[in-house]
Amino acid sequence: MSRSVVAAMTAYTLELREAEIKLNQNESPFDFPRELKEQVLAKMAERPWNRYPDFESTTLREAIGRAAGLTADNILVGNGSNELLAATIGAFVGPGTPVVFPRPTFALYEKLVTIAGGLPIPIDFAPDSGLLPLERMLDAIRKYENAVVIVCSPNNPTGSVLADGGLETLLDSGAMVLLDEAYADFQSGGQAILPVRTDKIVGPRTDKIVCPPPNLVTFRTFSKAWGLAALRVGWLMSTPANCREIRKVKLPYSLNVISEAIAVAALENRSIRDRNVAAILAERDRVFDAMRSIPRITVFPTQANFITFRAERPLFEAFCSRGILIREVAGGCLRVSIGTAAQNDAFLAALKEIA
Amino acid sequence: MSRSVVAAMTAYTLELREAEIKLNQNESPFDFPRELKEQVLAKMAERPWNRYPDFESTTLREAIGRAAGLTADNILVGNGSNELLAATIGAFVGPGTPVVFPRPTFALYEKLVTIAGGLPIPIDFAPDSGLLPLERMLDAIRKYENAVVIVCSPNNPTGSVLADGGLETLLDSGAMVLLDEAYADFQSGGQAILPVRTDKIVGPRTDKIVCPPPNLVTFRTFSKAWGLAALRVGWLMSTPANCREIRKVKLPYSLNVISEAIAVAALENRSIRDRNVAAILAERDRVFDAMRSIPRITVFPTQANFITFRAERPLFEAFCSRGILIREVAGGCLRVSIGTAAQNDAFLAALKEIA
Repeated sequence: MSRSVVAAMTAYTLELREAEIKLNQNESPFDFPRELKEQVLAKMAERPWNRYPDFESTTLREAIGRAAGLTADNILVGNGSNELLAATIGAFVGPGTPVVFPRPTFALYEKLVTIAGGLPIPIDFAPDSGLLPLERMLDAIRKYENAVVIVCSPNNPTGSVLADGGLETLLDSGAMVLLDEAYADFQSGGQAILPVRTDKIVGPRTDKIVCPPPNLVTFRTFSKAWGLAALRVGWLMSTPANCREIRKVKLPYSLNVISEAIAVAALENRSIRDRNVAAILAERDRVFDAMRSIPRITVFPTQANFITFRAERPLFEAFCSRGILIREVAGGCLRVSIGTAAQNDAFLAALKEIA
Repeated sequence: MSRSVVAAMTAYTLELREAEIKLNQNESPFDFPRELKEQVLAKMAERPWNRYPDFESTTLREAIGRAAGLTADNILVGNGSNELLAATIGAFVGPGTPVVFPRPTFALYEKLVTIAGGLPIPIDFAPDSGLLPLERMLDAIRKYENAVVIVCSPNNPTGSVLADGGLETLLDSGAMVLLDEAYADFQSGGQAILPVRTDKIVGPRTDKIVCPPPNLVTFRTFSKAWGLAALRVGWLMSTPANCREIRKVKLPYSLNVISEAIAVAALENRSIRDRNVAAILAERDRVFDAMRSIPRITVFPTQANFITFRAERPLFEAFCSRGILIREVAGGCLRVSIGTAAQNDAFLAALKEIA
């Protein structure tokens, strides 16, 4: 009885496996500091739980706006960036809307486009170069009128990025660009977000204000670099006009009060993120170099907190039997998240043994 | 640049007003017990926050299944019942699908149907009888093929319910029925949920098992009777087959670990809900009787934790200026949530003065 497009879909699933070393979900290996946890939770015990959250999540939106050099009107927050991606696709993708995206990428995009009745235009690419298929995406944008583009850069599961200047080229095409920056904290050169200066008439004079381009919506998350996957908090940045449209589709009150308070506390302690990122990048480079010296595997360039590789034989179960859970991804490849030094050593030792 | 149906929509909004006495969101006036808050939060400080929630929210689904006499396969949990309503509409309502619902009702339904491209078929009714317009909904179901029906019973914002046997009649029509029971805890005669016994072949013999009808999805929430609005937890109950289809549309990991743990703790302490409900019902009956004796207002029958009434003159601002926030609802009516005895006394005193 469900809609035919839904009946034809497969569910987004993740096989549940217990493992001593869990490197399958691109989580940070570092927990949030215990003292800070207890501080926020003590405040939350005081807060009445029988009252709804602030309708607009204003405190968190203002904190994110300040950190990004934008205003709260440029920001929406949600229950993970997934919720905001779904709302944005609901706002911009209707029946028949062509949606261009590289493939392989995060499987949720195609599911959300299908549910919205849009026309998925996947652009297949090989992860070997470390770059997303910019030219072929542009060809597709030119071919289909009013296309929407979804780009995850760095891309899950390949680690590939848009080439320098690639985002500007996509924006110049006029297409609506949904840029998923879940992994941008790990990208060299820092954030890919592109606030541009525009003129705005304020009273009798012209003030320069910072505003994102009108055809860009950028998605961010506290789940990766901040180490807050358990709390489910993401945000998006765009123009106030786009935020207003997306907010019509997004559910009200979607962020619970505790997750919001924890995200605010995280932003007040930015060194947590910086420490996590520095440690993860150092380990990523070490693991990457070690993997490159192992025969019979091909390691793809990455700017994320994971490394994707192709092996000559199936290795997933052999890792499992050694207590190491990694992820099978598209094209028969494997993806390993960067863990602690000890976890990474265990992964490398197993890989050397079984590859 | 947003879709035309979205551009034409207005946002779901709630005017932000500060007030000493807040009776505008049908919240419980009773906070969750402090000791229990601290117990759950202490456990949550131990839990690693860098790890994603359980993919399936199994612990909570099993707890709800046990409490409802169903299995975890009959249950989905989400970030408020709103999220589950959106996913269910996404699974069953496509472009052109007729969706029948009484009006006035919870404004979100029509927005979600519009976003899905469905055809809203509102059935206007007057709240005077206390009953939802069953016969006219059935007429609409007969007129439109493959209709989906959304019923909130007791209905927000009128307090009206389906007549006895009304749910069975709707189900017999063959239409897919989405039953929002956010306020069913406050209904006399208890829960409207309808688990029916069906035969299932298990091994060599026939076991009776409890299963909801195949064309019913029921929505419940921890936000009202349980007093957990701040945490955003809802659930739905249906057949395993319907749950599988809806799960394809619902976002993965949508419930954060803290809200899940609090909901599990709530179910282990069911007396919290029972105490809340008993106190709210006693106050509701007292406030209702008092309101009926006030001239120049019409009070509508209610089986929820709020009372809706019509006044001869506009009263909303007069209440605000007395520090009492209630809600303006459809048809120039006002809705007041049942608060503590002292809050209700203040409301009644103000009403007597200004009506």
